[in-house]
Amino acid sequence: MPLKSIQAQLRAARRRSPLFGRPGFLIRRLHQLHCSLFLEETRAHDITPVQYSLMTALDVRGELEQNSLAWEIGLERSSVAEVVPRLQRRGLLERRRSREDGRVKLIRLTPAGRALLREMARAVQRAHDRTIERLSKPDRDMFLLRLIELVEANNDVGSVPLRLR
Amino acid sequence: MPLKSIQAQLRAARRRSPLFGRPGFLIRRLHQLHCSLFLEETRAHDITPVQYSLMTALDVRGELEQNSLAWEIGLERSSVAEVVPRLQRRGLLERRRSREDGRVKLIRLTPAGRALLREMARAVQRAHDRTIERLSKPDRDMFLLRLIELVEANNDVGSVPLRLR
Repeated sequence: MPLKSIQAQLRAARRRSPLFGRPGFLIRRLHQLHCSLFLEETRAHDITPVQYSLMTALDVRGELEQNSLAWEIGLERSSVAEVVPRLQRRGLLERRRSREDGRVKLIRLTPAGRALLREMARAVQRAHDRTIERLSKPDRDMFLLRLIELVEANNDVGSVPLRLR
Repeated sequence: MPLKSIQAQLRAARRRSPLFGRPGFLIRRLHQLHCSLFLEETRAHDITPVQYSLMTALDVRGELEQNSLAWEIGLERSSVAEVVPRLQRRGLLERRRSREDGRVKLIRLTPAGRALLREMARAVQRAHDRTIERLSKPDRDMFLLRLIELVEANNDVGSVPLRLR
């Protein structure tokens, strides 16, 4: 696509909504739409996207203490401290004291938690797919790559970095 | 860039974080980073990105009733009902009954609200710019265009469409 046509498309979009010139607004809106799709696909399970990310991190990494868990998904520790007891009450997580250091509490998935992850996997994948399905396959891959670039480039902004290997 | 190289980059990214294969996670994380940048740039003013969008809509559209305002920025009416009194207490908005229909309450910026928008404009622009500054100019434009495509394609998902002209 020639550069001029992209500029013309961006100008036309700004006439449809003045907020379309603001990357932050577009990102907020796309996040909100993804959350709606996630809810629509997974309603029966009553799990939020953040809860699902947290459970995925425990599934991939095994047992973690709260700070590592926060770091693994780039979430405020205070948010993790809210989410964990909620999932624990539902029998999806469990906490135990570390044998090496009694002050450290380790968090892990229960078998029920692992089963729920598996059960939800296809619905969750559909929510992710639907969020970007409007784009052609090559555009989708490029879009993901740009998101990753921006997420990595800005990782140290704010107080909650994401763990990258 | 050849297609294979994009695939290889996506695979490498997924080794850095298993969550990088999920568009919804990347979008949430980028939204969180933008909010941190917004806060960093505008801290002195104590205005959130959503409050700023709401004030912008009133600035562009003039006086609006609550439902139209929600529609203008794609926000839950309940969230608008929370934000409006807060800004009103700070003297940035005012509400009055419509002359045509006394049941309708119209919301508009006060001169202080308009002045604050102007005062914050450069800092807000910096937050938006910094969110995507890692990309080259042509990639940035393309990324915005993709965001707009996805936001428009999914506009009817969930309960809060965004007003598009």
